[in-house]
Amino acid sequence: MSNDRSDFVIVGGVACGPKTASVLARRLPDATITLFQREELASYATCGMPYFASGDIEEFARLTETSYGIPRDPEYFSSTKGFTLVTGAEVIEIDRKNKTVKVRMISSGEVVEHGYGKLVLATGGQPIDPPFPVAESPMIRGFTRPDDAIAFRKAAQTGQIGKAVVVGGGFIGCEVVESAAGLWGIETTLVEKEPQILPFALDPEMAAIAEREMQRQGIEVLTGAKVESIDLDEDKKPVVRIAGHDSITCDFVFVSLGVRPSVDLAHDCGLEIGEHGGIVVDSHMMTSDPDIYAGGDCVESFNRITRSSMYLPMGSLANRHGRVIGENLAGHTAEFKGVVGACFVKVFDLNVGAVGLNEKAAESAGLRSVAVLASFPDKPDYYPEYQTFTLKMRYSPDDQKLLGLQTAGKGDIFRRIDIFSSFLQRQGTLTDLLDFEHGYAPPYSEALDPLYQIASFAIAQSRGLSVVDLNISDAGIILDVRESDEVESEPWPVKSNQKLVNIPLGELRNRCGELDRKKKIIVACKRGPRSYQAGLILKHAGFEDVHVIGGGVQALR
Amino acid sequence: MSNDRSDFVIVGGVACGPKTASVLARRLPDATITLFQREELASYATCGMPYFASGDIEEFARLTETSYGIPRDPEYFSSTKGFTLVTGAEVIEIDRKNKTVKVRMISSGEVVEHGYGKLVLATGGQPIDPPFPVAESPMIRGFTRPDDAIAFRKAAQTGQIGKAVVVGGGFIGCEVVESAAGLWGIETTLVEKEPQILPFALDPEMAAIAEREMQRQGIEVLTGAKVESIDLDEDKKPVVRIAGHDSITCDFVFVSLGVRPSVDLAHDCGLEIGEHGGIVVDSHMMTSDPDIYAGGDCVESFNRITRSSMYLPMGSLANRHGRVIGENLAGHTAEFKGVVGACFVKVFDLNVGAVGLNEKAAESAGLRSVAVLASFPDKPDYYPEYQTFTLKMRYSPDDQKLLGLQTAGKGDIFRRIDIFSSFLQRQGTLTDLLDFEHGYAPPYSEALDPLYQIASFAIAQSRGLSVVDLNISDAGIILDVRESDEVESEPWPVKSNQKLVNIPLGELRNRCGELDRKKKIIVACKRGPRSYQAGLILKHAGFEDVHVIGGGVQALR
Repeated sequence: MSNDRSDFVIVGGVACGPKTASVLARRLPDATITLFQREELASYATCGMPYFASGDIEEFARLTETSYGIPRDPEYFSSTKGFTLVTGAEVIEIDRKNKTVKVRMISSGEVVEHGYGKLVLATGGQPIDPPFPVAESPMIRGFTRPDDAIAFRKAAQTGQIGKAVVVGGGFIGCEVVESAAGLWGIETTLVEKEPQILPFALDPEMAAIAEREMQRQGIEVLTGAKVESIDLDEDKKPVVRIAGHDSITCDFVFVSLGVRPSVDLAHDCGLEIGEHGGIVVDSHMMTSDPDIYAGGDCVESFNRITRSSMYLPMGSLANRHGRVIGENLAGHTAEFKGVVGACFVKVFDLNVGAVGLNEKAAESAGLRSVAVLASFPDKPDYYPEYQTFTLKMRYSPDDQKLLGLQTAGKGDIFRRIDIFSSFLQRQGTLTDLLDFEHGYAPPYSEALDPLYQIASFAIAQSRGLSVVDLNISDAGIILDVRESDEVESEPWPVKSNQKLVNIPLGELRNRCGELDRKKKIIVACKRGPRSYQAGLILKHAGFEDVHVIGGGVQALR
Repeated sequence: MSNDRSDFVIVGGVACGPKTASVLARRLPDATITLFQREELASYATCGMPYFASGDIEEFARLTETSYGIPRDPEYFSSTKGFTLVTGAEVIEIDRKNKTVKVRMISSGEVVEHGYGKLVLATGGQPIDPPFPVAESPMIRGFTRPDDAIAFRKAAQTGQIGKAVVVGGGFIGCEVVESAAGLWGIETTLVEKEPQILPFALDPEMAAIAEREMQRQGIEVLTGAKVESIDLDEDKKPVVRIAGHDSITCDFVFVSLGVRPSVDLAHDCGLEIGEHGGIVVDSHMMTSDPDIYAGGDCVESFNRITRSSMYLPMGSLANRHGRVIGENLAGHTAEFKGVVGACFVKVFDLNVGAVGLNEKAAESAGLRSVAVLASFPDKPDYYPEYQTFTLKMRYSPDDQKLLGLQTAGKGDIFRRIDIFSSFLQRQGTLTDLLDFEHGYAPPYSEALDPLYQIASFAIAQSRGLSVVDLNISDAGIILDVRESDEVESEPWPVKSNQKLVNIPLGELRNRCGELDRKKKIIVACKRGPRSYQAGLILKHAGFEDVHVIGGGVQALR
């Protein structure tokens, strides 16, 4: 290996690194570009690992190949992309003064020095260390490396796993639960210390929709459950000990507490590290050293909504960082303007997504926010095989700025999250959703898009219609405005201090007199829209203490 | 019926009319609101009719009921929405001076006068009259009224239709072709006078994808075919006579040449009519008479891209017009800021969509534009059951403003059209697509969204990479950069003046010497991305006459 001063050195070969190198090589075909990757594999699809573990993807090789079956190995990157990939090569030190890196060749142990003109750190993330003791065992694993997925798949496929525990109900945790229970039929428990799963993305009632789906699929979901230790019993079987709960003995444990930035190299050479532990970069992805750029899961991101920094490790962002770094290093200008936090996760037959701020995130950012919730079919409900989902939208009551959207349900939630993301990107307001022109054809969409409809509800709310929580436990009358056959087949779950009255929406104008004006009236229906309409009718009839439940019984399924 | 001066009179009860009335009634619960509808049915889902005709929707009633099974009849609108619907009531004259309308009750023939404070015209559209003679027969029909769908369904269901002809390859024509051939298995011919189907939405090579799907499904597609007459033979069977083509004798003909605005009332009372034959309205949907508003298929729309007026009849727009009219009449402000022309159409197993301007529309608007084409999987291709589609994007080479997107293929095209629509709505540029943050999870999306990737190709093009038509017929070398097994299983269809050379992308850097530098080189692959990469490699190697085919062999299927 040469230790000449080369033009560009890139550290890390999963997503941001190879993308940076490819863009650089396209823009500066004569440059010397060297990418060091610690592992033997490079540019594999980490995000696909749960679907290899689950058996949905037959061969691990599919995650390491191009779409036309060529392995993404050094030969591929050299011939097709035009840069040098060195695998099994760990960068162990950066000398910023002399602009060199020390590289340890893992197979030989040899350490060589390599000069750089510009350096790119794409060192990725690593699992958050558990705050409890964990025994050493091949059957207790994180889920960040190919080995983890391969080991699980092998054990599952050979019938070694009857029972599994997944610790951590974030995105990866949820995906891994499905990997275990889905195709392999493993009895699975999900353990999450927060009172809900997916706490960073969803508000509690939206997370509850996903939790119920897991339970329907036979998963035991333990929320608010603090793991104290993961031990091994006499038979070397993992035992998960949980505060205030029976211990769970099982065959396999995934510990999936999230990811933190891998910044040892950056830290040791004195680059600025941010409050979330990631490398600080500007909008050109330049670190505090103008000769060093960084991207991917090792950097902090600028949140476009809160205008503050956050940590958001996502393969999609890492790829986009790569382009920005490559362009800037090639002497052009490109900016990464920040993130809004769009995400999807498959929870068995449900699709879950979020973008922007949930209640907690808005609160901690000090932003005043209100939300509105409703359920919708994903195409007209006269069309066969429509699906339904629930949306929860958060916005500013002061200037009607959009703040966030959460979805859970079946059918096409993706369009709505992504469209909302595009509006968040440009500081959109409720009016933008009313102005939004969606493609309309009955096999695919309703005449008025759910985003339009939920914006209308938000506007009704901003004009004084009180919208309350799906699980409201206040004393009062629950006024169910569905038709009587709907009520019979799926009754509204009233609390003990609530009285249920059923008046179908079409009869409400004439039957208002049956309701006690002194009582709090809480209107409910199937999806939400009828409740909004009923709320307006009651307000016009002079009822004062009227509240509307968004989402309907649909969102309680 | 009263002929007192009421507050609000609305003419037309399908989409815009009922929506206007509902919004008004919510905002001004004490107002008198009267909606006159000529037909006995109101507020039915016209756009759902093809799917009733096809048998996908069992009962016609599903199109006339709420999602909870209540018919949208006068009783429903009165009790639930708070306004008066009068069906079977045709408004035959408007007296603007005295602010009255004359209403003819269809069942009795009685004519009454009805005063208005503000009048709303939602008179809709009507079929464009054929420019050729058409015989009278119940088996020769348009497809705009419930009767048309019901009559066809009845005839199809009772086996009376062995062969059908659909004249007109626009949206409705394409939907009706599927209605006929899909579930009923009727031998069907589509006749379109333009050289392609869907000429208002798609460029020729994108329409060709849909045409091939129709042909795969056994439809005879006759483009560039001018109908001269539709007669009846001795057996009273319809005969479609086509210039330069054999006549087609069949059992049923749909004549679906598009829709024009129904403006007789507006015209007769002297309201301003625009160049496309629709009522002229401002952004508040007010006509040239400040006491008369109009919306739905009877008005012209402001195109947000060309900044000029157009005619775009769509149920989704009609509903949005209704809200704007209702808000303004209720004394609030709401604007309809114009359209970008988003649309979807199902063509058997293919999903087709478009938004913004196609080549012809950009040309007639006098806008300089270029396009770029590529095919994509709708999720990572390592994920099972991914689907692929082709995108064609049009943008301004001068300021990189987005102008239009067309899609055809399987899988999730909807997200991409709708997201693009949201960017068009705000005069977005290629950079907005690179900045766009999509939700990423392998079951649903790739790490880099197709919109991101196609923006990258556009940027490569704007830097001098020549992108050429899918069906380029220039003499030269077609350089297919796929792997040899791909080439074997699906060869590139070369023209007689073209020479085919296969060098896999990974070998191109080393094998450039095999290519004749004096010849025009046209690079092709499976989906497009490899061709772009190969184009850049060749340009760097000093080849001058290099061109890239977007879309790949995928787009020729």
